[in-house]
Amino acid sequence: MNAAASLQQKIRASIPLSEAMQFTIESLDSEAIRVSAPLEPNINIHGTGFAGSIYSIAVLTGWALCTHILEDAGIDAELVVAKAEIRYRAPVTGELNCTAKVDAGARDLFLRATRGQSKGLLQLEIAVGDTPQAVLNATFCALRSA
Amino acid sequence: MNAAASLQQKIRASIPLSEAMQFTIESLDSEAIRVSAPLEPNINIHGTGFAGSIYSIAVLTGWALCTHILEDAGIDAELVVAKAEIRYRAPVTGELNCTAKVDAGARDLFLRATRGQSKGLLQLEIAVGDTPQAVLNATFCALRSA
Repeated sequence: MNAAASLQQKIRASIPLSEAMQFTIESLDSEAIRVSAPLEPNINIHGTGFAGSIYSIAVLTGWALCTHILEDAGIDAELVVAKAEIRYRAPVTGELNCTAKVDAGARDLFLRATRGQSKGLLQLEIAVGDTPQAVLNATFCALRSA
Repeated sequence: MNAAASLQQKIRASIPLSEAMQFTIESLDSEAIRVSAPLEPNINIHGTGFAGSIYSIAVLTGWALCTHILEDAGIDAELVVAKAEIRYRAPVTGELNCTAKVDAGARDLFLRATRGQSKGLLQLEIAVGDTPQAVLNATFCALRSA
């Protein structure tokens, strides 16, 4: 099983909401991630993407990328989201697609801080849709296991 | 059926994720709302409240209060969330509880703008837990139907 399939399975098995949303990792490496989810389980009262689903899939996209970066570096850490800000620009009318990239410099600083000071922060911008229809800025916090 | 039960039924029937999260309106009037959801369907990989569930339940709490305020005033409008910021302060280890209040002045301005200019904005702070364990600041936008 490749990294994307294995991480998706881990997330789906331990976060019931990710299963309900049909969270799917399309591609994953230590620089970027692409995630999708069908619209149907994620609709709102207007028949477009529910704000909570859009946020949840986007925050899981960032969490999955950070988790992969830590695993790739052989660091055992607990990863949580500390804060996040989302802007909704237009309704999501089809499949929910999220993408995030991390630059090599920010990733190295994050790994160095997590290794050296037991705690590292990484801010990621996650785009939802092509326009994009929504943008999430989330700060993730890794706490290295003793 | 009272306003809380009726709005909960409407939300659960049209937003599949709210049903998966077991979103429950405990109390509702035109000034305040209290919502709950059990931890179990909303856990994360650490066995505490999933960041996406916390956000989604909090944003629905604000949406439900705004919807009730509009209905109470007899205004037919489409209500969406424009932007939101959430800060996670501590893990949620039990039932998820959300509360929000609106002051009378802000509510009147919101209703006046929605009636007069067809578009009204209302910013709400939603607290999750007693401490609170998380705080969401969300801006809702009402677009009056023609």
